[in-house]
Amino acid sequence: MQRIDLATAASRLHEMSAVRILAHQHPDGDTLGSAYALARALQSIGKHTCVDCVDPLPHDFTFCAKGYTPDYMDGTESIVTVDVADAKLLGRSYYEKYGGIVDLNIDHHSTNTGFARETYLEEDSAATAELVADLIDLLCVVWTTDIAACIYAGISTDTGCFRYAGTTSRSHRYAARMMEFGVQTEPLDRMFFETKTRSFAALERLALEGFRFFCKGQVCLMVVTQEMYRKSGSNEDEFIRLVPQTRQIEGVLVGIAIRERSDGSWKISLRTHLPIDASAICAKLGGGGHAVAAGCESFKPLEETIADIVRYTGEALQAAGLPV
Amino acid sequence: MQRIDLATAASRLHEMSAVRILAHQHPDGDTLGSAYALARALQSIGKHTCVDCVDPLPHDFTFCAKGYTPDYMDGTESIVTVDVADAKLLGRSYYEKYGGIVDLNIDHHSTNTGFARETYLEEDSAATAELVADLIDLLCVVWTTDIAACIYAGISTDTGCFRYAGTTSRSHRYAARMMEFGVQTEPLDRMFFETKTRSFAALERLALEGFRFFCKGQVCLMVVTQEMYRKSGSNEDEFIRLVPQTRQIEGVLVGIAIRERSDGSWKISLRTHLPIDASAICAKLGGGGHAVAAGCESFKPLEETIADIVRYTGEALQAAGLPV
Repeated sequence: MQRIDLATAASRLHEMSAVRILAHQHPDGDTLGSAYALARALQSIGKHTCVDCVDPLPHDFTFCAKGYTPDYMDGTESIVTVDVADAKLLGRSYYEKYGGIVDLNIDHHSTNTGFARETYLEEDSAATAELVADLIDLLCVVWTTDIAACIYAGISTDTGCFRYAGTTSRSHRYAARMMEFGVQTEPLDRMFFETKTRSFAALERLALEGFRFFCKGQVCLMVVTQEMYRKSGSNEDEFIRLVPQTRQIEGVLVGIAIRERSDGSWKISLRTHLPIDASAICAKLGGGGHAVAAGCESFKPLEETIADIVRYTGEALQAAGLPV
Repeated sequence: MQRIDLATAASRLHEMSAVRILAHQHPDGDTLGSAYALARALQSIGKHTCVDCVDPLPHDFTFCAKGYTPDYMDGTESIVTVDVADAKLLGRSYYEKYGGIVDLNIDHHSTNTGFARETYLEEDSAATAELVADLIDLLCVVWTTDIAACIYAGISTDTGCFRYAGTTSRSHRYAARMMEFGVQTEPLDRMFFETKTRSFAALERLALEGFRFFCKGQVCLMVVTQEMYRKSGSNEDEFIRLVPQTRQIEGVLVGIAIRERSDGSWKISLRTHLPIDASAICAKLGGGGHAVAAGCESFKPLEETIADIVRYTGEALQAAGLPV
């Protein structure tokens, strides 16, 4: 990986004239906020820019693009990726088209594969949007409320509104600055964190009804079936937001969410509190992930699937000296 | 009301030698964080202090008192209240005992009644803890992680973790400083915002099952009965946390939560999005409150109670030009 520092990254952007900025697939607030903030900022200093993503812009983030008009469509100019840890996360067709020709990648993931020609990577930052804010400062862009709102969105969504462990004092200082540039944060955070679709609320109700507890209340398990998607009008994308709820109940150290895939197999998502290692438990079923969030799959019937994951979880609790 | 400024308030505290710091009844993070931060800070510069409240310290906030030993029990010394808008909010017995003899009140509520001899009031601050932080700076206290954790708790809880409209850029700057004093914010915020008791989770499940929608999905109504408290093992205190959920569903402008009191009458809580005025609707049933959060009561049977509040809500939607 060819790593470059902040000043070099700013200088590279300064040298570009037409820039395609790529967000990752299933785009979230950080990749989109970073992309649109950078596109707006570069455009304001005379560059031609467009923002591109294999997936459409989710409804929640249309504000990022509001009032921004791409003025560059196609060509042989510079390709910049934001918040993309691995070229494969561009999505299959974009990976094939752009995967090998990215000039600069701006990212904060420690798992970054270094696929770009040059990479500006800060693993200690809570969001890529923090790096983009620093670049904007160095490029002597005049901050606008629109640019600041994109940066705020990136930081707020990637820190779970300043709740996740990755949040730093710098995250709060960036947020303060963005508010001073005029960003009204309450409507944004309400949209990101406090709004449920009717179908999500219906799925949530069905899922909560079926919560099951194991290992003296230390394990909470939720199952979502295709039938529940049909009943609620919800889908897998919305299901993801339910997963953390399994771990929110007092005394629960391991939250397990099992969802039925359209082929009848099961996808298992684990959320743990330390010292329980989610990835070690999922590895027993051929999966993996991080210490507090991991996943695996099962092709057995549901009750056997539950028995397997609960057994491995119980063993992990026992190994940690906890009563099961 | 005798209002004093920050420097005068600091000077008053500097002149005190033994200080009883009073928190309000049903104490929350801001009154407790403010009280314990101030008590620790004053003690560190040689004052004798104690923290006092008519109600016991809730489990979530025991960390505020950890390692702090009151060194003052009773006497004729100074009385300071924090985050107390009205002397009655001290609770009946404390109101009778201290209501008339408070030397200094430090508060951020615009509804402050000016009951104290002198009041240091900043209505634009998101939390009283922000004012206490400023006082601590002026008193030349050496900041400790424990003091900073109390301040952070006050700000984080009173801003709903930086989500509420009252959050300012200063709130974020205080948060940044407290993190730099060593506060680990993630475990605190997880405890404040991401943890549910088993009984609360059970009540939530029962309440969500009964969600009803009116006025083309613009009104979401929830009913909680005494029977549901019994089934879930939950209670009114926990119920309060459910109320905002009525307003979180997409398209909902008015969330209505109706709870049965032990005498069989009904307490109605409204949460609205602007321009719908919650207090105007509740006023029709003899209640009141704020623009987006208000309440009233009903002694009629449940279905009549629902019909009343839904009718008045529908009229308010209609008056705002919305289809019902």
